[in-house]
Amino acid sequence: MRRIAFTVGYDGTDYAGWQRQENGPSVQQTLEEVFEKLFQEKVHVMGSGRTDAGVHARGQTACVDLEHPIDTEHLKMALNANLPDDIRIYRAWEVPSDFHPRFCAKKKTYLYTFAEGRVLPPELSRYAVLVPYSLEDSIMQQALRQIEGTHDFAAFRSAGGENLSTVRTVYQASLLKRPGWQECGIRLYSIQVCGNGFLYNMVRIIAGTVLEIGEGRRSLSCIQEAFKTGSRDVLGATAPAKGLMLLKVEYDA
Amino acid sequence: MRRIAFTVGYDGTDYAGWQRQENGPSVQQTLEEVFEKLFQEKVHVMGSGRTDAGVHARGQTACVDLEHPIDTEHLKMALNANLPDDIRIYRAWEVPSDFHPRFCAKKKTYLYTFAEGRVLPPELSRYAVLVPYSLEDSIMQQALRQIEGTHDFAAFRSAGGENLSTVRTVYQASLLKRPGWQECGIRLYSIQVCGNGFLYNMVRIIAGTVLEIGEGRRSLSCIQEAFKTGSRDVLGATAPAKGLMLLKVEYDA
Repeated sequence: MRRIAFTVGYDGTDYAGWQRQENGPSVQQTLEEVFEKLFQEKVHVMGSGRTDAGVHARGQTACVDLEHPIDTEHLKMALNANLPDDIRIYRAWEVPSDFHPRFCAKKKTYLYTFAEGRVLPPELSRYAVLVPYSLEDSIMQQALRQIEGTHDFAAFRSAGGENLSTVRTVYQASLLKRPGWQECGIRLYSIQVCGNGFLYNMVRIIAGTVLEIGEGRRSLSCIQEAFKTGSRDVLGATAPAKGLMLLKVEYDA
Repeated sequence: MRRIAFTVGYDGTDYAGWQRQENGPSVQQTLEEVFEKLFQEKVHVMGSGRTDAGVHARGQTACVDLEHPIDTEHLKMALNANLPDDIRIYRAWEVPSDFHPRFCAKKKTYLYTFAEGRVLPPELSRYAVLVPYSLEDSIMQQALRQIEGTHDFAAFRSAGGENLSTVRTVYQASLLKRPGWQECGIRLYSIQVCGNGFLYNMVRIIAGTVLEIGEGRRSLSCIQEAFKTGSRDVLGATAPAKGLMLLKVEYDA
């Protein structure tokens, strides 16, 4: 038996999230079924973490234990030939049997993408949320700088998270301006957040809060207040799932 | 009767192109049907030019003559509320009755998008072509510089074009590197071409030729030879429709 890790990208629109669910097909289940079909082995696909329904990934990292001796390059091709078009395997490689995509992860990076404007272009309709208010860049950047560092993020968590400790380190939180959309009358942005781990809905709560601050509907001071009080109520709404993308998961070499 | 111009974006994947066709729904027909439904007027939507089946647009420009007195902001909203999600109106404004989106156009800009790598991410599957060969940036840039200027582009035309003169001026032809895809094992590029007009399939022939030059399968000298001989045969294949996007059409103020 060997352990094989792989990076997987998906358009989460038509899935009930990463993890097996009763209420619809999940990415994990779709992957497990393709492995079983190809190799007649019952496998368990372990991911670096769950993503919710509608959330996307470019660099989700997962692994399986497999008896079959297929080499990793052919495995990748076989999986891509049998997976639906909205799930793609970018890389597959052998890892030690104690590798675990969740517990060994050192850093995760997410993007949250939104368009300031009135009309969302078709190409973005699955991947960005429309913000029909005018946004102030500099205050959003200030808000993101306050997110950086080691803090108790208890306020930045939806009910349903399982973690005991709510202290996390955000190595970097920044606002990226994405050029090329002026013809559509929009300004496109992504919030990029890299940290050692994230609580349930933490990135979507960061995004929703930064947007409300950028719109002038919420004060910048709410972030420090949230760190101090742990109160979810002082922060913005949880931003919609479709704007969120798991960009990459990093491990020690 | 007034003339109203508008910019329209579309995902061309599910359309038989801009112009009304027998073999499937077109963008033009879809727009005309929504106008007729909303205003009970039979309208003719004139575009800046046709786009083929599968080609996309961010800034196609079109116009209609309309009796109905609706203001342009409400017109835009009413159209978007009634159009399918893959066609969006970004702007609408009144123009003089002699404005014609095709004959008054001064500049058009197209993007042709491709990914060097092995696996195309789901988000790009409708908008980029996969090039499973290694590409040399600098020679592609040299090829694009040779395209710039005023030339007889007779060789860069598919059968079916109607134009009498085949001389066109390309103001700018450049290679854009688009960051953010390294997690997927690809390098994403767009060729951006701006000119005073384009022959039938001209941008797709430029793209196909530049790709073959970048792969080392065709010599840089083919471009000069094509200008000299007018022979389509010395150039690369017409690149697939889905990589092409009409970015904008510019008019005199």
